[in-house]
Amino acid sequence: MSAINEIQTATAVPAADVAAAAGAPAPDVKRRAKKEKVAEEKKFNLKTPKGTTDFMPSEMALREQIFSTITSIFKQHGGVTIDTPVFELKEILSGKYGEDSKLIYDLQDQGGELCSLRYDLTVPFARFLAMNGNQFPAIKRYHIAKVYRRDQPAMTKGRRREFFQCDFDIAGAYDPMIPDAEILTILTRILTELDVGRFQIKLNHRGILDGIFSVCGVPTDLLRPISSAVDKMDKMPWAEVKKEMLEKGITDEVAEAIGVYVKQKGSKELVQALLQDEKLSGNAQAKAALDELALLFEYLDVFEVTDKISFDLSLARGLDYYTGVIFEAILLDELTTAQIQGTAPLKKDKKSSSKAKDDQDADNDENVGIGSIAAGGRYDELVGMFAGTSKKGVSKKIPCVGLSVGVERVFSVLAKKQARETKASATQVLVMSVGDGLLAERMQVAKELWRAGIAAEFMYKKKPKPQQQFTMCDKEQIPYAVILGPDELAEGKVRIKDMRQKVEGDAAAGVVVLRDDMVAQVQERLAQL
Amino acid sequence: MSAINEIQTATAVPAADVAAAAGAPAPDVKRRAKKEKVAEEKKFNLKTPKGTTDFMPSEMALREQIFSTITSIFKQHGGVTIDTPVFELKEILSGKYGEDSKLIYDLQDQGGELCSLRYDLTVPFARFLAMNGNQFPAIKRYHIAKVYRRDQPAMTKGRRREFFQCDFDIAGAYDPMIPDAEILTILTRILTELDVGRFQIKLNHRGILDGIFSVCGVPTDLLRPISSAVDKMDKMPWAEVKKEMLEKGITDEVAEAIGVYVKQKGSKELVQALLQDEKLSGNAQAKAALDELALLFEYLDVFEVTDKISFDLSLARGLDYYTGVIFEAILLDELTTAQIQGTAPLKKDKKSSSKAKDDQDADNDENVGIGSIAAGGRYDELVGMFAGTSKKGVSKKIPCVGLSVGVERVFSVLAKKQARETKASATQVLVMSVGDGLLAERMQVAKELWRAGIAAEFMYKKKPKPQQQFTMCDKEQIPYAVILGPDELAEGKVRIKDMRQKVEGDAAAGVVVLRDDMVAQVQERLAQL
Repeated sequence: MSAINEIQTATAVPAADVAAAAGAPAPDVKRRAKKEKVAEEKKFNLKTPKGTTDFMPSEMALREQIFSTITSIFKQHGGVTIDTPVFELKEILSGKYGEDSKLIYDLQDQGGELCSLRYDLTVPFARFLAMNGNQFPAIKRYHIAKVYRRDQPAMTKGRRREFFQCDFDIAGAYDPMIPDAEILTILTRILTELDVGRFQIKLNHRGILDGIFSVCGVPTDLLRPISSAVDKMDKMPWAEVKKEMLEKGITDEVAEAIGVYVKQKGSKELVQALLQDEKLSGNAQAKAALDELALLFEYLDVFEVTDKISFDLSLARGLDYYTGVIFEAILLDELTTAQIQGTAPLKKDKKSSSKAKDDQDADNDENVGIGSIAAGGRYDELVGMFAGTSKKGVSKKIPCVGLSVGVERVFSVLAKKQARETKASATQVLVMSVGDGLLAERMQVAKELWRAGIAAEFMYKKKPKPQQQFTMCDKEQIPYAVILGPDELAEGKVRIKDMRQKVEGDAAAGVVVLRDDMVAQVQERLAQL
Repeated sequence: MSAINEIQTATAVPAADVAAAAGAPAPDVKRRAKKEKVAEEKKFNLKTPKGTTDFMPSEMALREQIFSTITSIFKQHGGVTIDTPVFELKEILSGKYGEDSKLIYDLQDQGGELCSLRYDLTVPFARFLAMNGNQFPAIKRYHIAKVYRRDQPAMTKGRRREFFQCDFDIAGAYDPMIPDAEILTILTRILTELDVGRFQIKLNHRGILDGIFSVCGVPTDLLRPISSAVDKMDKMPWAEVKKEMLEKGITDEVAEAIGVYVKQKGSKELVQALLQDEKLSGNAQAKAALDELALLFEYLDVFEVTDKISFDLSLARGLDYYTGVIFEAILLDELTTAQIQGTAPLKKDKKSSSKAKDDQDADNDENVGIGSIAAGGRYDELVGMFAGTSKKGVSKKIPCVGLSVGVERVFSVLAKKQARETKASATQVLVMSVGDGLLAERMQVAKELWRAGIAAEFMYKKKPKPQQQFTMCDKEQIPYAVILGPDELAEGKVRIKDMRQKVEGDAAAGVVVLRDDMVAQVQERLAQL
């Protein structure tokens, strides 16, 4: 008993003792000549490569919580996962990312094939579908994995050269807009579940944009450049966007005509209004796209997510491969009211990189200032680019629609919200001793806890000090201690203490239970956590 | 009712219909000139790079089961995880893998730092500890991630250039043999839990081997070559091993003296016997190592894993960085009785690669024939190689002991055992309709199931055929269907059917429940799965 009493007040321990308690290495005093030391220190440049980082245990614990939330929802929607190699044949990636292809990491030619690190998960997925279309003419697949971009890193903003993408795609030829509606529902559920704050999903359709440009008189060869200018409307005032358009070669009249359309945002009513617009609905492509959006909104109503969607005619998104619905989710709490209402542009780093980097905006945190947190769209032709045609000349294309969650973004938003670092270990019980080392006894108890599936640790010392053990509990946020003392053990008893309670008096010593009941007693307490 | 009856016997569907039911793409008949087609087909070499592969959804589901079992045990033992970049500065990896350094993948020099893909997870971990030793003077970390080796692949044997390693390491200066005992306990628990079949963990100590070589008269410069020859005793007869030793430059007498020792295997009794051997225990290094093993066996007795351990004096393991306990787990069911008893050597592909590839034996499936499935050991000096010394000349070394599970091996062993592919999706309910498409109603039901956390799918067709929907259940191994029919819906009712039962008669139609009770009724059934 006295041994246990001895440590009742020892739970609050200065942080400085933490390292020692966790087992700081005994210094091996092996002196070297100064010259030799310098030589050795030169030998290793102790760092991770530029634009990459190590993730610490508590960061990984938060990251795994995020992944777990996301995959749980992916699975609820029938998602399966595949794995593709981290590098692909160079030719697979070539010509898919516009001028950003220069950001692709190549492997050195060491004989054999030329390979590159993947730049995203979408092109490898399209390659996978082109190879395995017979087995998977349709698939809902998710993939959470790292991608690589030799971009200028901005580590403090979370823009790195190695970062995670988190994609869910529905591939297959289905009746229109049903998978698109489910994709938007999944995204809504994920952002709600992750608790990242208020968000909105901006929605548009490539067919509507192209229809607008066409009826306003944009020459075909200027479609993409003008689209790229329109996409900047959330980052700069209309006057600047218009100026860029004029510089790209359209007339003031055409630009103003475009402006009338792309300044509009709304919901399903806007779809109906545009369908009544004779000029626009006279364009076959725009009419078909508007009909699709009208149907999509019907389905979104059934799924009850319409209130999260803003039909925004200025959303263009950069990637060339989109063919239908496009969307981008933004966090509202990082914007001013004026920005949300669209009366003030969003601030964004002006970068020289092309708009083909749009996917990266969501994924690689380029837009830390503007709240973009997920994005996606329909790309019906990408698989066909790889798969080509059958012997009979039939295109082997597989239509796809997908979303990408900017998990690095989610991570930094959630990390900021935390009062304390995420508990890194899963440890629920520290088996400790007082009064004597009791190593074999602590091992025995730990073994019994492990066999019951309980996460338990003990200090790897023959005679650890009580304070060291309490420090370990505190540092690792371990909720319970099983405390062994020689006298109590002799009576067939141990003590269980709730380490989260910083109480004094009798409760501080914990509760004495029978040694034989120990596992059951611990389980009972853990069940209430 | 009639609509539901219509599909009662439709559950058994020919496999040929599966693709169609899952939503095979409607062919887009876009013919091209033959020349153009050939050009396009030449453009893409549709494959993954040599030595790499895609993992299919059902393979990934099995892989995730394996990872989940392993990480669950890692976590029970207080393990935390970290993440390091997939590539390291080239100089970090240099000089760590002997002649196998030629197997390292380099990134192309595109300006900036020279980098290489990681070859294992141990060297990056040591680099991590050297950089973060102040924050983590002690850590139990696990890391499951891909590593890269430009080796000659043998895909059918599971030897690939990109493969997973699965490591758990305990770093920190502790009282002797406590972490080593826990590492062996963790390994025993993992192999038992994975249900890979009967296994044995061969155990030895570098200090004993070096002591043996020393007292038998092996010159210092021949220590590693002779050790490498001894390590082959499980793959070739003693006569051949001895021949190799003689070729390496020791005398027949020395070789015979070594043979007397290294042919021995046993348990803690053998440790005691060797401690009584005056010649061997007269060597300080051997004596210290034997004392350590004696203590280790005491702890293994407490953890009740001694019966899994075979103290085997022929186990040498290749990697230079081991400094203490070394071990390797083998599957016994793949060996003959003579091999287990040690009277017949194990067959092994003879490869020109050096023994420095030993870790790969477990991890990269080199030894498919000989049952090696995990390995590890103590390496007390590796971190110090990176960390150097403090300003006061004190080595910043951090002692480590770790294990690596050959997860690719585990995967192929477990895949072979399966009667059927692992269910790829988590889907528990298919929401289907009969008699009419009822798309909005199916969406509505799916939405309610998702909100209750139930994994549910519905076909993305306005009017799917009953047979297509049953095929989807069968293909995806979906256990329950919620079946909507117009007449029943009008009465506020739906039907729940257990799809695993291939029953006829009334039960085949499922059970009618109130629409409002649907979620609760489904939950009740899933709870019994």
